[in-house]
Amino acid sequence: MNKSGKPIIGVMGPGNPNDRTVLDQAEIIGSHIAKRNWILLTGGRKAGVMDAASKGAAEAGGEVMGVLPGDSHLGMSDHVSIPIITGVGSARNLINILTADVVIVCGMGLGTASEAALAIKHKKSVLFTKVSKSHLNFFQSLTSSKLPFFDEADALLAFIEKEVLLL
Amino acid sequence: MNKSGKPIIGVMGPGNPNDRTVLDQAEIIGSHIAKRNWILLTGGRKAGVMDAASKGAAEAGGEVMGVLPGDSHLGMSDHVSIPIITGVGSARNLINILTADVVIVCGMGLGTASEAALAIKHKKSVLFTKVSKSHLNFFQSLTSSKLPFFDEADALLAFIEKEVLLL
Amino acid sequence: MNKSGKPIIGVMGPGNPNDRTVLDQAEIIGSHIAKRNWILLTGGRKAGVMDAASKGAAEAGGEVMGVLPGDSHLGMSDHVSIPIITGVGSARNLINILTADVVIVCGMGLGTASEAALAIKHKKSVLFTKVSKSHLNFFQSLTSSKLPFFDEADALLAFIEKEVLLL
Amino acid sequence: MNKSGKPIIGVMGPGNPNDRTVLDQAEIIGSHIAKRNWILLTGGRKAGVMDAASKGAAEAGGEVMGVLPGDSHLGMSDHVSIPIITGVGSARNLINILTADVVIVCGMGLGTASEAALAIKHKKSVLFTKVSKSHLNFFQSLTSSKLPFFDEADALLAFIEKEVLLL
Repeated sequence: MNKSGKPIIGVMGPGNPNDRTVLDQAEIIGSHIAKRNWILLTGGRKAGVMDAASKGAAEAGGEVMGVLPGDSHLGMSDHVSIPIITGVGSARNLINILTADVVIVCGMGLGTASEAALAIKHKKSVLFTKVSKSHLNFFQSLTSSKLPFFDEADALLAFIEKEVLLL
Repeated sequence: MNKSGKPIIGVMGPGNPNDRTVLDQAEIIGSHIAKRNWILLTGGRKAGVMDAASKGAAEAGGEVMGVLPGDSHLGMSDHVSIPIITGVGSARNLINILTADVVIVCGMGLGTASEAALAIKHKKSVLFTKVSKSHLNFFQSLTSSKLPFFDEADALLAFIEKEVLLL
Repeated sequence: MNKSGKPIIGVMGPGNPNDRTVLDQAEIIGSHIAKRNWILLTGGRKAGVMDAASKGAAEAGGEVMGVLPGDSHLGMSDHVSIPIITGVGSARNLINILTADVVIVCGMGLGTASEAALAIKHKKSVLFTKVSKSHLNFFQSLTSSKLPFFDEADALLAFIEKEVLLL
Repeated sequence: MNKSGKPIIGVMGPGNPNDRTVLDQAEIIGSHIAKRNWILLTGGRKAGVMDAASKGAAEAGGEVMGVLPGDSHLGMSDHVSIPIITGVGSARNLINILTADVVIVCGMGLGTASEAALAIKHKKSVLFTKVSKSHLNFFQSLTSSKLPFFDEADALLAFIEKEVLLL
């Protein structure tokens, strides 16, 4: 856990989900994070779950850390308040999951899968929402830790609060 | 494709597989790669599929590129002939899949999953062996490209030769 | 320039300077940055200029972003409020200079030299203080851009305000 | 030292030197490395010292490892036989110096300066040629280790052979 301040909650999800409810969920989760005065972390791009979660958090007055793959602000979500410009391409996925105190996986894509796998490998608390049962089973088959899944953002956030951050 | 010389074939798999046949397959694939005078690329560690594939290739007289996560040769497979010391931890997974002209996924683990996902995302030719049907389905569900699967090393290598490298 | 919020000002300097006045200067600069409501960025470690600048900013009520080389909070300055855990070792030096809107070089060391060189290469605004004339000349000889040097923190910050950020 | 095979000798230098003799020296050094059956490592681009050293080594029948910053072979020197595609931009400078058993600095530029500084920081054997006395003094002032300088490629290679690799 980040010893020095506000919890940093990563929300990882596809840049181009084909399901509008994934984006809606990301936006709701972003707003919940902001209302708790936690920091949202995303991959920073103006696309998909990254942008939707950032919008939710920013409109609720929260801080949004965007960890960008490129070497400039190009393509950054308008809702990012703390841009991290890495210049290391997809290698920034590692930085996303190491920097986040908790990782929420919202929807699934190839980049998201790489982040979820690394997060579990690095012993992060990883929670899932808006993923299919078979997608969840894939990750569950690769770890002996129980991977929590939630349909509702409320329950997901409550779980983080009580079971992960122990607030 | 690597325009300047021998094909570089990445073999990605778990560092601690719980199935001996995964290691056997990795070793066989390594030897096949060497016999074709291609370069084997692995994550370089003295563990699991990385080590087994490297052993197979080295004992068949081939070159073995090991892309290590640490900042020294510590923990390197004894069979690596071309060590790449990255110092960037799991971020080296990106380098593995970008450097390989073809990526063979042999068995499954968390690090392997992150590499397979990144490889498909970066439009690499990715082939699977020694993975369960449900694990293969996971990746297939995330891409419209057909992901080839092979039970036998012979068939896998023949496919690379004829369909991917067009030799 | 960071389009989305507070300027991020990087302060780069040695982890073990042999001159107490370098640390004093770093602390003063940190406090100046905080008083202007800018974000301080450092390499995040509890050592040397990183720690001193962070202390100055934190005690003045400011935000401190620490971009750490390791894969945990181990060794982090107590004054960091926004930890970025990169896990990529010295490769994080690139992230430091790309994320900072302005780079202040305070004192000189080997890591600092690598950051100053990359910052100038990537066309960042780089300002120097507490470096010898010959050290400044080294960097000046490698670029046609005029590299500003300041003895006093006040003048350095005023220059950033008026000439770089155009506030 | 690379325990598993041929020594890997890094040659670092500017991509656009303004002095033809720097390129000539890089080419001669590359050929010397190849004649000793060592592997040359460079930043891999078709530019400046990287390209000249690679040409020298390749024409003498040697192996050339090119550690590229981009995510494809684009811009690679025609003389690279072992391309490493990192996708991490200037962060690949760390990989260059960690992978090389010995680092030769031939000429000076901003990227080169970042590599020389990191190499000394990471306790690599670093040797200099075609740098001015004041440039050498800059690095010498930052370390207590004696930094060897050579006018002639012959003497430089002999030093590596006898004093560094202890062959």
